[in-house]
Amino acid sequence: MPWHQVEIHLRPRPRGFHLVTKEIVAALPDLARFRVGVAQLFIQHTSASLTVNENADPDVRADMERWFDHAVPERAPYFEHTAEGPDDMPAHVKASVLGSSVSIPIRDGRLALGTWQGIYLGEHREQGGSRTVVATLWGE
Amino acid sequence: MPWHQVEIHLRPRPRGFHLVTKEIVAALPDLARFRVGVAQLFIQHTSASLTVNENADPDVRADMERWFDHAVPERAPYFEHTAEGPDDMPAHVKASVLGSSVSIPIRDGRLALGTWQGIYLGEHREQGGSRTVVATLWGE
Amino acid sequence: MPWHQVEIHLRPRPRGFHLVTKEIVAALPDLARFRVGVAQLFIQHTSASLTVNENADPDVRADMERWFDHAVPERAPYFEHTAEGPDDMPAHVKASVLGSSVSIPIRDGRLALGTWQGIYLGEHREQGGSRTVVATLWGE
Repeated sequence: MPWHQVEIHLRPRPRGFHLVTKEIVAALPDLARFRVGVAQLFIQHTSASLTVNENADPDVRADMERWFDHAVPERAPYFEHTAEGPDDMPAHVKASVLGSSVSIPIRDGRLALGTWQGIYLGEHREQGGSRTVVATLWGE
Repeated sequence: MPWHQVEIHLRPRPRGFHLVTKEIVAALPDLARFRVGVAQLFIQHTSASLTVNENADPDVRADMERWFDHAVPERAPYFEHTAEGPDDMPAHVKASVLGSSVSIPIRDGRLALGTWQGIYLGEHREQGGSRTVVATLWGE
Repeated sequence: MPWHQVEIHLRPRPRGFHLVTKEIVAALPDLARFRVGVAQLFIQHTSASLTVNENADPDVRADMERWFDHAVPERAPYFEHTAEGPDDMPAHVKASVLGSSVSIPIRDGRLALGTWQGIYLGEHREQGGSRTVVATLWGE
């Protein structure tokens, strides 16, 4: 069974949700080697996240950001981990609510995403910088 | 190492959380071939989700729905993606909070779920229709 | 391809978030056999969860608990599944929001976690007792 593992360094993005499917797929030419398998994408950070959602209307990404900012408010009185800035602790909560990895089936050399699905980077810091994703592919 | 990948078309269900363990397992007779492995279930939609939770009392599913409807309210003033109906944008948020896939270990030809665990479909639209799940099994 | 599957019985912990990376890794000496692969950790309970988050400041774990207790309040008027105590239904919601498993890439015999990442047990009951995690490793 072939294995492929590579680090992908996503270009820096502002706070919010970003469609990164193209950038991820472009970094994984080895996908074509797999008739069937799984691609696991794991982000090595605790203030950013990966999730799968709608790939068409940018309003969905903006609404997602607005909902998360409402649900996990900065400067909530119960937050004590505030030394790294008001966006830091909410970023940690969002990272766990959304998750640090996505696993996507591979079929016939391509990610078996639904028609309307794409991969989102959740960038939860104001200045998150480049984010590292460990991509692991296995299958046959 | 054997691989098995199949599309499961879940029958349509109303909005809410639904226990789908039996329907999923019935569609995966190949589970019996694996002494050890993993089953990954990936839903190809952005307004429905898969999660693992309590398999006994239906009140848990109803309470889950009530909590999510409270936490992600329809017609929230900050939502702008509203053209597809008031249940659409909340459905996208719920899909990412819950996740589009579950991975369950396989042991001795069966899903190694805990005694009280079952697989939930989170149907977040009023009229979601049939939902497609890509099931991928691998192991030995 | 080698496979390794083992049950890990985490020692009981009080309600809250707990860093369990060391306890997990100590139970997985077979990690060293894998040049590349994946470790999947699956918790066989519906009132506890696994997630990846910041491994340094204990305030992050305490703030996480405070946020979740605020977001999923005990005795919310819409909860009907209350027979097992006020912490029970919120525990089910938290378990699905956070998730029942984490998958972490393996590289050169070690978990490929980021510098600041660790594995959290989310213990959502007052008296959860020992929690069982099924750890499955595969790779080459």
